[in-house]
Amino acid sequence: MTETQAPTERTRLKRYHWLAAYDRATIDAIIDAALVCQIGYVVEGAPIVTPTCHWRMGDHVYWHGSSASRMLRAQESGVPVCFSVTHLDGVAFSRAAFDHNILYRSVMAFGKTELVEGADKKTALEAFVTRLAPGLWDYARPPTEQEWKASKVIRMKLDEVSAKVAAGLPEEDEADLALDLWAGHVPVRMVTEAPVPDPKLRPGIAMPDFVRAFGL
Amino acid sequence: MTETQAPTERTRLKRYHWLAAYDRATIDAIIDAALVCQIGYVVEGAPIVTPTCHWRMGDHVYWHGSSASRMLRAQESGVPVCFSVTHLDGVAFSRAAFDHNILYRSVMAFGKTELVEGADKKTALEAFVTRLAPGLWDYARPPTEQEWKASKVIRMKLDEVSAKVAAGLPEEDEADLALDLWAGHVPVRMVTEAPVPDPKLRPGIAMPDFVRAFGL
Repeated sequence: MTETQAPTERTRLKRYHWLAAYDRATIDAIIDAALVCQIGYVVEGAPIVTPTCHWRMGDHVYWHGSSASRMLRAQESGVPVCFSVTHLDGVAFSRAAFDHNILYRSVMAFGKTELVEGADKKTALEAFVTRLAPGLWDYARPPTEQEWKASKVIRMKLDEVSAKVAAGLPEEDEADLALDLWAGHVPVRMVTEAPVPDPKLRPGIAMPDFVRAFGL
Repeated sequence: MTETQAPTERTRLKRYHWLAAYDRATIDAIIDAALVCQIGYVVEGAPIVTPTCHWRMGDHVYWHGSSASRMLRAQESGVPVCFSVTHLDGVAFSRAAFDHNILYRSVMAFGKTELVEGADKKTALEAFVTRLAPGLWDYARPPTEQEWKASKVIRMKLDEVSAKVAAGLPEEDEADLALDLWAGHVPVRMVTEAPVPDPKLRPGIAMPDFVRAFGL
């Protein structure tokens, strides 16, 4: 995946355009590193932004939910959405009050939703569970027919998409660099802590390796 | 701040309604713990979701940017937006493949934007810098008139807002609890790492205490 998306009018970064990335390797890595995305859609002229779990398979991002979900019902007939992922990587302290900044990686993608059904739906949900933790699909109690029916899967093609990566300190004016003021950044990252067993866990059941190995 | 917002048709949680919170103490804590929010808005019928830094003062959430920003230009005349904040707190592994879940805290607020000008704009931007790190406003090089002019501040009143807090494992069927399968959760949190000085830092400048004390 090294293809580059030509920016469209909507995805071409106008401000801070030097932070923009349009290559799929960068875009995919940002999407894949996140468990949670934000889906923007429009209902009766008003915007709604819903956080949800997502996963990617090739050129599509997927999300799922209950068949009774208002969001998924709105999206099953192919509506325009904005898919958005953001990682906070740090805070930059500059010499000038208005030059402080956030370090981050983000992706914004525009597209239309599509309902995923039949065998593709099963493949997609298995891929999601496996993406959460490799080995989890075979370990867990398999879904019943009722559970399959109660789940809906939506996808969107990644063809109007851009990334933005702010990794370094913002440029400061020469005059500011000469001031006797400190500048630098504080990195921020997500960490996992030790797994916590369910209080209802039956005695004698060992923690599976994929739980111990879970990382972000 | 212990007032409770009566849920509207849009903010009343229909699915997983037991995860809902409408009290401002819970809502404010989730908003204040985040540096980055997602702003959803509509341009020519299509949704756009933009990550940006936010801060809260009383009943309003604020965000800012360049006066030339397309997003802020669209929002200065009072458009409907959806303000959204999400913290990922962990991943829950259930006994059933379709019961795995994410632990999270999120806030969704609907409102109209409002341009903040004059003295209120200065108060708001000073509050933002101080919220980033107490002491930072007085330490940094103060903004010039040009910088004030180049910044625009938008706010939205928190009067149609709800929170959702998924802190525990999802309910599992009695039959699933009896299976010889492990269940539990892996907590996730954001941490800060040691501050990194700017490579252009002049020699002999001490790191200010507010940088050392910076936390999330």
